[in-house]
Amino acid sequence: MLTIARFAAGTALVALTATAARADEGMWTFDAFPAAKMRAAYGWAPDQAWLDKVRGAAVRLTGGCSASFVSDAGLILTNHHCVATCAEDNSTASNNILKNGFTARAREQELKCAGQQAEVLTAIRDVTPQIKGAIGNATGADAVKARNAAAAKLESDNCTDTAKTRCQVVSLFGGGQYKLYTYRKYSDVRLVWAPEAQAAQFGGDPDNFNFPRYSLDGSFLRAYENGQPVSTPQHLSWNPRAPQDGEATFVVGNPGSTQRLLTLDQLAFQRELSLPITVTTLSELRGRLIAAMAQSPERAREGAETLSGLENSLKVNIGRVKALNDPAFMARLAAAEADLKRLSAANPAIGNPWADITAATNAYRAFYVERNYSQPFSDLYQYAIILVRAASERGKPEADRLPGYSNSVLPLAQKRVLDPRPITPWLDELKLAWSLSKAREYLGADSPQTKLLLGKESPEGLAHRLVSGSRLADPAVRKALWDGGAAAIAASTDPMIVYARSLDANDRALQKRYDAEVDGPLTAARAKIADARFAAFGDSNYPDATFTLRISYGKVQGWNERGVPVPTRTVMGGTFDRATGAEPFDLAPAFAANRARINKNTVYDFVTTNDIIGGNSGSPVIDKAGTVIGAAFDGNIHSLGGNYGYDPALNRTVVASTAALDEALRTIYPAPALLAELRKK
Amino acid sequence: MLTIARFAAGTALVALTATAARADEGMWTFDAFPAAKMRAAYGWAPDQAWLDKVRGAAVRLTGGCSASFVSDAGLILTNHHCVATCAEDNSTASNNILKNGFTARAREQELKCAGQQAEVLTAIRDVTPQIKGAIGNATGADAVKARNAAAAKLESDNCTDTAKTRCQVVSLFGGGQYKLYTYRKYSDVRLVWAPEAQAAQFGGDPDNFNFPRYSLDGSFLRAYENGQPVSTPQHLSWNPRAPQDGEATFVVGNPGSTQRLLTLDQLAFQRELSLPITVTTLSELRGRLIAAMAQSPERAREGAETLSGLENSLKVNIGRVKALNDPAFMARLAAAEADLKRLSAANPAIGNPWADITAATNAYRAFYVERNYSQPFSDLYQYAIILVRAASERGKPEADRLPGYSNSVLPLAQKRVLDPRPITPWLDELKLAWSLSKAREYLGADSPQTKLLLGKESPEGLAHRLVSGSRLADPAVRKALWDGGAAAIAASTDPMIVYARSLDANDRALQKRYDAEVDGPLTAARAKIADARFAAFGDSNYPDATFTLRISYGKVQGWNERGVPVPTRTVMGGTFDRATGAEPFDLAPAFAANRARINKNTVYDFVTTNDIIGGNSGSPVIDKAGTVIGAAFDGNIHSLGGNYGYDPALNRTVVASTAALDEALRTIYPAPALLAELRKK
Repeated sequence: MLTIARFAAGTALVALTATAARADEGMWTFDAFPAAKMRAAYGWAPDQAWLDKVRGAAVRLTGGCSASFVSDAGLILTNHHCVATCAEDNSTASNNILKNGFTARAREQELKCAGQQAEVLTAIRDVTPQIKGAIGNATGADAVKARNAAAAKLESDNCTDTAKTRCQVVSLFGGGQYKLYTYRKYSDVRLVWAPEAQAAQFGGDPDNFNFPRYSLDGSFLRAYENGQPVSTPQHLSWNPRAPQDGEATFVVGNPGSTQRLLTLDQLAFQRELSLPITVTTLSELRGRLIAAMAQSPERAREGAETLSGLENSLKVNIGRVKALNDPAFMARLAAAEADLKRLSAANPAIGNPWADITAATNAYRAFYVERNYSQPFSDLYQYAIILVRAASERGKPEADRLPGYSNSVLPLAQKRVLDPRPITPWLDELKLAWSLSKAREYLGADSPQTKLLLGKESPEGLAHRLVSGSRLADPAVRKALWDGGAAAIAASTDPMIVYARSLDANDRALQKRYDAEVDGPLTAARAKIADARFAAFGDSNYPDATFTLRISYGKVQGWNERGVPVPTRTVMGGTFDRATGAEPFDLAPAFAANRARINKNTVYDFVTTNDIIGGNSGSPVIDKAGTVIGAAFDGNIHSLGGNYGYDPALNRTVVASTAALDEALRTIYPAPALLAELRKK
Repeated sequence: MLTIARFAAGTALVALTATAARADEGMWTFDAFPAAKMRAAYGWAPDQAWLDKVRGAAVRLTGGCSASFVSDAGLILTNHHCVATCAEDNSTASNNILKNGFTARAREQELKCAGQQAEVLTAIRDVTPQIKGAIGNATGADAVKARNAAAAKLESDNCTDTAKTRCQVVSLFGGGQYKLYTYRKYSDVRLVWAPEAQAAQFGGDPDNFNFPRYSLDGSFLRAYENGQPVSTPQHLSWNPRAPQDGEATFVVGNPGSTQRLLTLDQLAFQRELSLPITVTTLSELRGRLIAAMAQSPERAREGAETLSGLENSLKVNIGRVKALNDPAFMARLAAAEADLKRLSAANPAIGNPWADITAATNAYRAFYVERNYSQPFSDLYQYAIILVRAASERGKPEADRLPGYSNSVLPLAQKRVLDPRPITPWLDELKLAWSLSKAREYLGADSPQTKLLLGKESPEGLAHRLVSGSRLADPAVRKALWDGGAAAIAASTDPMIVYARSLDANDRALQKRYDAEVDGPLTAARAKIADARFAAFGDSNYPDATFTLRISYGKVQGWNERGVPVPTRTVMGGTFDRATGAEPFDLAPAFAANRARINKNTVYDFVTTNDIIGGNSGSPVIDKAGTVIGAAFDGNIHSLGGNYGYDPALNRTVVASTAALDEALRTIYPAPALLAELRKK
């Protein structure tokens, strides 16, 4: 599944893209769609009206997914796995809607999704001169501060109505360009329809990132404002038809992050240092969760979504390790870097930014583990640290605040803290104990930071004391602390607040060191490499993904797996052949019950050559006519290396077809009103 | 801790050692001690009488440790962690001797250790001509078969009294030499004394492989024969004195396996393929165990030893990953390989064995995952597959049997299967479900081998059915199947036997493929590299470790950790400073109770430059006078890279002093009779 990884440890160094994009490669911004290139390959390309139309219907979900409006009444198509947390939050021991599925019989039954916000991109404006001008000749931490302050001011000045709009300065090409993105935002998003999780996740972790696939990974949400569904005349038309082999497809969504053409030293940093820690520690968390969930059906329910997201992140990171350990793949990246260096050698203005990146990366090696483990992993802790910091940052001039607390970001941070959602104490305690234990393991028992984190307590003992003693699970308590500001935070004796206060200074110091030794030098070096890239390749390339709106073109096409062709599609009847009766290959109950009625020949899932990555989950798959024929929900196993580079022969997008969703709405999880709304012209 | 890793996944490719050994480097065989080299460095070296004496007192424990006789009545000194499984096996819910410690007040209270056997090396004979002659011009699987058959025959012919002797043909220098090792064996080993686990494991996993250290990692066993303690006049003298900085020390024991100077392609195989799988999957098992043990104190007790061994293995493998990702370390290994190639270039008899190894390693990449997951991980399954195979193999001529079922090995296999020891069903089910789940993950849900392993069941469902349905936990059931042979196995409906029967053929086929494509070619190529090595360096080197008796010389010496000197020793009083009250830094109860009486200045643990590795746990640390001044129990964190190469500046052995053990026997866990036995001259 292609959500933003919620479990990524540490902060990835930002990367650049060099060399011209290959066939069907590219996550293009809407202000730089390569129409000529597509026309040359496909004999057709969308015009500006087409692009404007789909842009206006495309939705970013702040939970880490993509989506699209598919009716004029704010109806949103996305993936099931993008609404699973919402379904879990709205489940109870007596009504497990994640497991049983959900159909709102009337609008007033639609269920609020905590922390979720829908955003539609309305404008893109170049602000490169303003940001670069603000940085001027500053270096290190000063450059970072100047950049962040200038961005925050642009955002504040251009989106004064923070209830309905959001501004975001996006750094593209690693600092080669800065663009101001303006969004219409909808901060009340509700669940309309979801199938049984077993239908959406059929095959579970074993089938995730694999194909052929039999997954009904689609769901519907609705955007509300002032308690009413919003009007969305600019929506995509629902087209429940079968995809045709070879037909052109567009994926419009928000790829979260790619790291294509990191310098080789940055790749070595990941391969040698950060990825082994990430994979090793997440694997242990996975084991802890699996065993804890095996204790009771209630725990199995409460942990399901966390485990699913974790296993997804783990597979992504294991795929990255594999890619970085593939000599042929690495040789291609090395050749591209050598190529760009060669092309830039005659240009004295470029200098040797690669050496600067080497130095910054090596500097980071010295404190990566400290920064990675400066704060523990826990929902309650997350509330606490945001409350502590918001109280302190809100009182400062915007230019002096931490990046996450500028005026443009605060409303979403506030919403995330204050929205009611259930906290599961055993689960939060498990995560907290795990992360504290791994901190001690990697920092060492004698490190000052371990002593700061643990004092004389054990990871398990501390986690239990904090989670059982904190009252932050109560939204009213959080609201009182938010509203009370610095005085309330200073006076609080809530153990999680006390703990967050105790860790704050060390984390800020590490961030400052990171700004000075890593981010500052990288910002300067990356801008130079971007210049080298523009000089060598002009505008024939696309920036690395930034969880902002992109469009990818491609086509319906399979691939060859060790010489064996993989088909482009599955049909719904295949589910019954694949089912073993044992989870995760057990049939969803509604599939079993409606077996005779389901049209077995309905196209279920299909693959395309579109170039996407985590964050694209839920993206509409659009045909030339501009109608939606599916929701992208996954990549194939080869696409995991897509973080570093796209291979047109192997990388594929996996799509849940609108045909299958339509069939489900008719015969498996009947929702006549929803069907009527989708079909309304 | 330095036991043989019980959790290593897959089979490591055998390696070679090239370039001359560096200062204090080397795990020397007793027939090739480098006396001249040591004399040059230390002004002294042991003579043959000295060597013969310590060899006769050195003990190999088949559980994966080393030890030594320290009285004339079969008393054996080893580590606590080498007897922990025995202590756990002899524990009950009402008397947890692993936790509480154990002192036999009289000989009849000494407790049998299931599966454990003590072995003393009595002779070494060169059989290289016989084995190489038997291989002749055979290649591939034929060469492997000829080699194994010749070795089995030599073992059978030379140790006809299998009750008291054991013969073993050892392949040294990767097939450059073959030696016949003869042992006096003692198959009845009993626990005499053990401290509280918390005293031995103080600091737990965080302190494991670290120093300064505060660990009482010593225990005593006794060898029996015919129900009586054996007479062992050739024993080491107990010398509970403090070590002196810089004094010469010898470690005599059985290093399990090193892989120094693998070819670079073999290292790449580990770094890219096998180690990531091992570390990732073991981390998940660790998490599953931790969470399962958190459910109840009983489970915490039952899982403790498994978890401890697992965390140890994991740390070892993480250390290997780090070493292979260290550019400076790798550059040194690459230079050594280039050096040997250069020195061999003029010798046409050598040819290019490196290329042959590349080919064999690449061949293995194609089925490593299959071979790694051809059999699941479970104690009951282990019983089942040995019973199934022994029944089939015993009926064949020795030359046609699988290597583990020759006449010389069968008695130990039989002992391991028939010795009574408790099986913990939840724990075995957990391990089995984990390994089946990882098999599916790495093989893929659609692989024929996954279907063979799982059928239509889930890993959890199958594990539960097999463990809950099997009666193999009952030693009488195992004995009936062993005695009943092929007919009993064929007639058995025990689900674990049925399952083992179903997996046997596929595993044999994979072994045959491994022999043909990997082991055979490697055997030939390794012998050539060994020839190159002898030609270039003469006998100035030592063979890679093979869990056979070796001697290492070195001295009491600390090291510099990032510029800060690490002291050579700790004292017992330091324990009280380091204790936090929270596990694993909580004081052992007897330490707390006897705090006033303990002599705080007693040397506790110390470090030496001796070159050791897993399997050396429990090895006596011997001074020039031939007396024992400690038991080696660990290496420092740098020693984990010692698998691939020894760094004299950083690699250290960690030793529990006899002084501390003596103090413990007097004031903490009083054992006057044992003290008297140790002090008897």
